[in-house]
Amino acid sequence: MIDNPFYAPEFHGPYELFSLGDFVLEEGYTLRDCRLAYATFGELNEAKDNAILVTTWYSGTHQIMRDVYIGPGRALNPEEYFIVAINQIGNGLSSSPHNTDGTHAMAGFPRVRIGDDVRAQERLLRELFGIERLELVVGGSMGAQQTYEWAVRFPEKVKRAAPIAGTARNTPHDFIYTQALVETITSDPAFEGGWYEGSSGLRSALARHARIWSVMGFSTEFWKQERWRPLGFASADDFQVGFVDAYFAPMDPNDLLCMAWKWQRGDVSRHTEGDLAAALGRISAKTFVMPIDEDMFFPPRDCAAEQKLIPNSELRVIESTGGHLGLFGFEESFIPQIDRHLGELLSS
Amino acid sequence: MIDNPFYAPEFHGPYELFSLGDFVLEEGYTLRDCRLAYATFGELNEAKDNAILVTTWYSGTHQIMRDVYIGPGRALNPEEYFIVAINQIGNGLSSSPHNTDGTHAMAGFPRVRIGDDVRAQERLLRELFGIERLELVVGGSMGAQQTYEWAVRFPEKVKRAAPIAGTARNTPHDFIYTQALVETITSDPAFEGGWYEGSSGLRSALARHARIWSVMGFSTEFWKQERWRPLGFASADDFQVGFVDAYFAPMDPNDLLCMAWKWQRGDVSRHTEGDLAAALGRISAKTFVMPIDEDMFFPPRDCAAEQKLIPNSELRVIESTGGHLGLFGFEESFIPQIDRHLGELLSS
Repeated sequence: MIDNPFYAPEFHGPYELFSLGDFVLEEGYTLRDCRLAYATFGELNEAKDNAILVTTWYSGTHQIMRDVYIGPGRALNPEEYFIVAINQIGNGLSSSPHNTDGTHAMAGFPRVRIGDDVRAQERLLRELFGIERLELVVGGSMGAQQTYEWAVRFPEKVKRAAPIAGTARNTPHDFIYTQALVETITSDPAFEGGWYEGSSGLRSALARHARIWSVMGFSTEFWKQERWRPLGFASADDFQVGFVDAYFAPMDPNDLLCMAWKWQRGDVSRHTEGDLAAALGRISAKTFVMPIDEDMFFPPRDCAAEQKLIPNSELRVIESTGGHLGLFGFEESFIPQIDRHLGELLSS
Repeated sequence: MIDNPFYAPEFHGPYELFSLGDFVLEEGYTLRDCRLAYATFGELNEAKDNAILVTTWYSGTHQIMRDVYIGPGRALNPEEYFIVAINQIGNGLSSSPHNTDGTHAMAGFPRVRIGDDVRAQERLLRELFGIERLELVVGGSMGAQQTYEWAVRFPEKVKRAAPIAGTARNTPHDFIYTQALVETITSDPAFEGGWYEGSSGLRSALARHARIWSVMGFSTEFWKQERWRPLGFASADDFQVGFVDAYFAPMDPNDLLCMAWKWQRGDVSRHTEGDLAAALGRISAKTFVMPIDEDMFFPPRDCAAEQKLIPNSELRVIESTGGHLGLFGFEESFIPQIDRHLGELLSS
């Protein structure tokens, strides 16, 4: 356990904790008192058939999903749906290296897989709310990995699925990209094998980690067109310092590494002995596959190749010069596209 | 000066040295006994009108240009042309941080710009060979930066130009990408501000530098299609260890940093107070702008935007899943395309 004031309701808004008790992970370790942090929006109806699950991405929490994706008048409308946003394991609010005591604290935290998150989320929804079927599962990036995992693992429980800017089986290039992120942290002597005293000594490492996000997270046009200017920055470096570096600076390095390991290994074909077509063929959900056109590491062609393997699916490409991090919704045109596609999906 | 056996004829093939004497750099420092390493192929005719200049890229030397781009029966045919391949300053064969003595040794090496290389190359060609006009200037990546600089700075001396996979004015994204490369080295405590005893302590840093090349240097499809397999590797990591890491491992870190600084600031519009259209409008050379379709950091659209500003030019896109590092010619289809375009250019 390491104190980190960032992971608190004052930064992320209110949330609840659900304990799974001792939770056995796919890699064969038992996470004691495994907790999921979640937030709900709207009311569950009596038939319990208006539930939507919103998942989270690398470094993200329910906060950004709440602020950018959910709201009255939006596709994810809490006046119509009961929306549950569940924080992924390792994201700092749910059980994570930095907030775990004992054997599994910090560098001792066990390896977690996307499948662990999805099994844990399924239990939360069923045991806490009695939800047996979801109108929609939706998430971006690693949230898309969880969305695919839901649709393949629990086909009967997922009526619709909207994986945004992510893949069902992580690509080799994505693995290498994530590894470069990982090594900015693990190569720093202050990392001490994950047993650092505090994370302030790792601020430089986190900045290097952020700068690799700068290279891959946006698009070449984002930088060329100076799209950071309308966001209130005076130069590209000002934007990197004030937005990209600042975003990651308060985070716990081990927490990021926990998520990175999981991201690298997201793969629904683990259910079908490596046969991706067989895994995706299991999906019964109506699925909108929603890549971002300028995404440098989940390029549309990778997503399109998977979409072709999903029976009842459509490819819906989002246009955004923001690239992958367009997910943050900082470009005005982004959210209307999301809402249009999710609205169509929900009414189909 | 630091001993580095890699920078020797046994690894790069024979070359000559030309001394410029004391050479004043654009940044206002005097490089004493500035030397250019060069190699020639073919014979200069009496009229001295069959000369071609071949430039080098980041980390590259005349060796790869000789082995991959030049040869009998090729567009760059030494039976027809007098081909001079000149190593850029900082590449380890020409004057570079690691092979310089005194004040300018190692971290004391002054900042060098693309314009310095081009002025130095012009002197070599004129003073040593009496060459006043070039049939062609051609180079890839940073070699393309030098090619553009030649065509803008000395329009009357360049009859044809072929910048491959590079830009006339470096893009903001490219700057950020290169900075991420730089920081893998400068952030390592063993770097000691550039005053390391030997570079073996920086092997890990050089490997991280290499791994960022893995992320950006190829294409997402290169990794997905396992295009490393025909190159004789058993896994993606085997390829990274055996090809990418191994390529950079013997190099001098300060030499790489010298080239990186130069790359980041390549900009022909320095001649025209920042007006890129005016700079490129000066070019009288018949110019083929040759981006690689899958290049992640010199994407065709950046090159196409520049090509439109060059009076007598054509856009010739090279198709290569190899991405930027397709320049190495490891994909069978790459060199025939280069030869076809250069052949057409030379016969026009």
